[in-house]
Amino acid sequence: MFLTILFTFALLFSSSHALQQDFCVADLSLSDTPSGYPCKKPSTVTVDDFVFSGLGVAGNTSNLIKAAVNLAFVAQFPGFNGLGLSMGRLDLAVDGVIPLHTHPEGSEVILVIEGTIRAGFISASTNVVYFKTLNKGDIMVFPQGLLHFQINSGKIPALAFVSLSSANPGIQVTGSALFANDLPTEVVAKVTFLDIAEVKKLKGILGGTN
Amino acid sequence: MFLTILFTFALLFSSSHALQQDFCVADLSLSDTPSGYPCKKPSTVTVDDFVFSGLGVAGNTSNLIKAAVNLAFVAQFPGFNGLGLSMGRLDLAVDGVIPLHTHPEGSEVILVIEGTIRAGFISASTNVVYFKTLNKGDIMVFPQGLLHFQINSGKIPALAFVSLSSANPGIQVTGSALFANDLPTEVVAKVTFLDIAEVKKLKGILGGTN
Amino acid sequence: MFLTILFTFALLFSSSHALQQDFCVADLSLSDTPSGYPCKKPSTVTVDDFVFSGLGVAGNTSNLIKAAVNLAFVAQFPGFNGLGLSMGRLDLAVDGVIPLHTHPEGSEVILVIEGTIRAGFISASTNVVYFKTLNKGDIMVFPQGLLHFQINSGKIPALAFVSLSSANPGIQVTGSALFANDLPTEVVAKVTFLDIAEVKKLKGILGGTN
Amino acid sequence: MFLTILFTFALLFSSSHALQQDFCVADLSLSDTPSGYPCKKPSTVTVDDFVFSGLGVAGNTSNLIKAAVNLAFVAQFPGFNGLGLSMGRLDLAVDGVIPLHTHPEGSEVILVIEGTIRAGFISASTNVVYFKTLNKGDIMVFPQGLLHFQINSGKIPALAFVSLSSANPGIQVTGSALFANDLPTEVVAKVTFLDIAEVKKLKGILGGTN
Amino acid sequence: MFLTILFTFALLFSSSHALQQDFCVADLSLSDTPSGYPCKKPSTVTVDDFVFSGLGVAGNTSNLIKAAVNLAFVAQFPGFNGLGLSMGRLDLAVDGVIPLHTHPEGSEVILVIEGTIRAGFISASTNVVYFKTLNKGDIMVFPQGLLHFQINSGKIPALAFVSLSSANPGIQVTGSALFANDLPTEVVAKVTFLDIAEVKKLKGILGGTN
Amino acid sequence: MFLTILFTFALLFSSSHALQQDFCVADLSLSDTPSGYPCKKPSTVTVDDFVFSGLGVAGNTSNLIKAAVNLAFVAQFPGFNGLGLSMGRLDLAVDGVIPLHTHPEGSEVILVIEGTIRAGFISASTNVVYFKTLNKGDIMVFPQGLLHFQINSGKIPALAFVSLSSANPGIQVTGSALFANDLPTEVVAKVTFLDIAEVKKLKGILGGTN
Repeated sequence: MFLTILFTFALLFSSSHALQQDFCVADLSLSDTPSGYPCKKPSTVTVDDFVFSGLGVAGNTSNLIKAAVNLAFVAQFPGFNGLGLSMGRLDLAVDGVIPLHTHPEGSEVILVIEGTIRAGFISASTNVVYFKTLNKGDIMVFPQGLLHFQINSGKIPALAFVSLSSANPGIQVTGSALFANDLPTEVVAKVTFLDIAEVKKLKGILGGTN
Repeated sequence: MFLTILFTFALLFSSSHALQQDFCVADLSLSDTPSGYPCKKPSTVTVDDFVFSGLGVAGNTSNLIKAAVNLAFVAQFPGFNGLGLSMGRLDLAVDGVIPLHTHPEGSEVILVIEGTIRAGFISASTNVVYFKTLNKGDIMVFPQGLLHFQINSGKIPALAFVSLSSANPGIQVTGSALFANDLPTEVVAKVTFLDIAEVKKLKGILGGTN
Repeated sequence: MFLTILFTFALLFSSSHALQQDFCVADLSLSDTPSGYPCKKPSTVTVDDFVFSGLGVAGNTSNLIKAAVNLAFVAQFPGFNGLGLSMGRLDLAVDGVIPLHTHPEGSEVILVIEGTIRAGFISASTNVVYFKTLNKGDIMVFPQGLLHFQINSGKIPALAFVSLSSANPGIQVTGSALFANDLPTEVVAKVTFLDIAEVKKLKGILGGTN
Repeated sequence: MFLTILFTFALLFSSSHALQQDFCVADLSLSDTPSGYPCKKPSTVTVDDFVFSGLGVAGNTSNLIKAAVNLAFVAQFPGFNGLGLSMGRLDLAVDGVIPLHTHPEGSEVILVIEGTIRAGFISASTNVVYFKTLNKGDIMVFPQGLLHFQINSGKIPALAFVSLSSANPGIQVTGSALFANDLPTEVVAKVTFLDIAEVKKLKGILGGTN
Repeated sequence: MFLTILFTFALLFSSSHALQQDFCVADLSLSDTPSGYPCKKPSTVTVDDFVFSGLGVAGNTSNLIKAAVNLAFVAQFPGFNGLGLSMGRLDLAVDGVIPLHTHPEGSEVILVIEGTIRAGFISASTNVVYFKTLNKGDIMVFPQGLLHFQINSGKIPALAFVSLSSANPGIQVTGSALFANDLPTEVVAKVTFLDIAEVKKLKGILGGTN
Repeated sequence: MFLTILFTFALLFSSSHALQQDFCVADLSLSDTPSGYPCKKPSTVTVDDFVFSGLGVAGNTSNLIKAAVNLAFVAQFPGFNGLGLSMGRLDLAVDGVIPLHTHPEGSEVILVIEGTIRAGFISASTNVVYFKTLNKGDIMVFPQGLLHFQINSGKIPALAFVSLSSANPGIQVTGSALFANDLPTEVVAKVTFLDIAEVKKLKGILGGTN
């Protein structure tokens, strides 16, 4: 019954690339563009391009922040390319913290699966802090580009998943941006009003120079 | 130190609404627009506008699909307004199914928390089915507007959370669209090639008329 | 008079690709991107890249749906690339039907040129059907991603043209998506509530397997 | 079967405006926004909000340009609001012309239904003219914001329909912009290099002053 | 000549709001939306809605940062609404500094008019610093959401103007976000790794509490 | 302290292209796309990709318009790619003029640095002229795609800088579009209502043919 109409479509689409527009799995071997990566040839796409298991594994929290972040951005999961979505997994040991950071290119929502997390973000125009303790099953949004953080405020390890509104939202960790590069100490002090000694100390810890 | 610059900002922003642009919590009492709802006055916004607990509660699966869907779209969680994100919770009892549906306005990613789920979507241009069994911790994407479904394929109840790339992505359940309204039986049959008897039977079950 | 300013521009634009931004005719030999195809070199573009005659030819309606669809999407007409537009021609013999389908990536407007067409779409959130008989010169919109259909309800052949809000809006024909692939019969039945026998029958007709 | 899931949706959507997001018929009584007009209450929307018959009527070409333009932009057809589409009807008597103009907010495609039309647009960066005679059934695209025109080049009246990539693309007719307002004659001459006498003559014809 | 076509337009546009779409001057008395403010009635718009003189006045740099920022965002200049642009004026006395900050909603370009400015931004993914001394006439871009700063590195006062890619890009000054609100000292320390004493000192200077 | 989290990121990002998303400096050697040029490899990007000095040089105004335009669009300054911004410098000698033109792809804001400039734009729907004399420090916006112009109305040379809301907004100079190409004289006359003699004269001056 549909054979003819299907044939018509097939004919019209023959030697076309229209299939790619149902989805656009990233071909990471090609140059990125402002809208995302060029698409992998649809004939080579399989269901495994749309499924990712990397978030099923707990991160190693044996570190000084007692936390780990596992990402499923377009670089890790090319199936997100062009779809305006990405994800991440947060493992926080007791006293674990996800340090202050922003996502320059996307908004975030966090879902608490286990434990208790104190999370907050800071308004840009008023510096008001929106800060609350989240329990299992709670979700909280962090608007695009605003500083935010998460802290395990409970007595057991916490597990949470985050979803973001871009396939590649970026992460700028304030501490790393200030203290893990070669930005001269006096410049860091001047633009942040921190003491020189404090800046030097943190550069030492984070491997910054100058 | 910052007092002066802060004062300068305050002065410039006085009697302005610029604060609203950090975020735009929906005022559902006003008319929606193509870009989302008008913003609630920022002075009335609290942290509770950014936190939602409705997904922490299991849905009632004592029904014929043995499944329940809990939504956190802008209508349920106004904090999502303008941020390009929404969420949902899927509870699937043993043999439960989320029937065939699309999200006209957004792409989706599913995260399996408990159990085993067979999920799939269908390509528009080729009708190819991308279909796989997902285990705990797996994520899978469903590109915008494409038909997809989820089935509990395990021996225990399944729990999953979905995130979508719009604050109000919509849900069109194919069965409800065909059999739960007053679209005349002969029209349904003509545009779907189903038998009249089959259409009448499903209209009876779903409360459709004509 | 303008010679100097023109020269200035020429100088500044020398060895630049800025010309491409007036338009971006698709180079279908390159990989698609989330925003569309890379642009053909402007020096090779002629007026024929902006003109398409394929919709001037009636489609063959000697088939079981008594209808034909001719597309002018980016794959057929590369001049649409990046412009947010595409078109199609619908020929419906007496009793012809364009089966239930969606366009995942675009909204549609239909213009009736000859005959009488019953057209409708179904709301996602309420399942309300918006359904009307269109006469010559009438236009009707079908919002993005919503199920819709067209039926020749007159006594003469009908001709209509559709315009869509994307260069590659896609077409998902519900019947083909369900019955023209290898999605297992029991899965189709489970996600649609159709009888196994009905599914098998339609798979037979449409060439589906499993 | 679906009753429960439907009930669940209904419950969640109660007292929500989520229905509006399937579509957003313009409420022209409210202030426009950068994304379009606020939406009419969905409960008051009927199929007639999605159907427009104004393009079925031929325009009166008994005028000096021997042509008429009928618009179906959001102001005439509120159903287009938010959908990224609009339309227009062009009637050109023998020797009729649609004068040089641009659409600041959208691209256009023209479809010739009757007669023969010479149409063209001018590239911005190179001033190259893309100019061709179109016959019945031909379509031609005019990229956003570029100067274009249409002339009846046949021996019979011509009829064409245009579709545009915005619900409100705007129309700037160059001649009207220069000669139908109070922009001082010497300014018009200075910015166009036309003779004062020519400017005065055309202001007289078009009702311009100063 | 154009009278008829003009009349036709007038007729079609009568009692419409289509004029508003040429521009959308913000009506700050109405609620903002995700796409910007609703538009002022076009009949009340004058040329003064499109002109702003507030950047012509030097800011007062007699403060501890020896700098001043004057904004022309939508709140100060409603004519920018919906146009994807805003501006600001930077006055930096000798040794003046614009502290570390981000614009969550837009990219920035700076133009140096007088003096010498050391400006830089920090990459999110690699923490690489892009840092250079700018002279009169130089421009430099700061991509959306990335931390950046400007310092007067010359022996005379510096003047610069910035343009941003949003009518309301926002400004988040890192120091103010951390030290000018009631975010508890131990939380600030925990998410930034600063010493408690340092946090208390800066809170004292900036008026923060807790 | 951050070393571990940094290491985690590094690990996840290894062999990824995620760095490119902080910015996307144009690789002009590759084909443009509807969203802009593909990105230069981030490892080859230096601060000089984000700084441009070409606007620091006065243009040569010894020409018939007594004005010069220097552009910093993506073709001249690849650092703007994907950021939604571009700039230009206008030098106007006494009596200099920037002729009537549009930017098909972007809105513009002008900032007067020296002298006095009469600037204006013309509304599309109403042909109303928004026209004013700008002094040093004034800014004025020109909405996307609308005809506008600038004239030195003072007794000294004028200098201004413009910013636009696209990396490649385009420039269509009305006079050049009409009189600097091979569009037949009778066609130009027919679509503009100018006299044949006037068209021929201007074609002669601007180098047009036919």
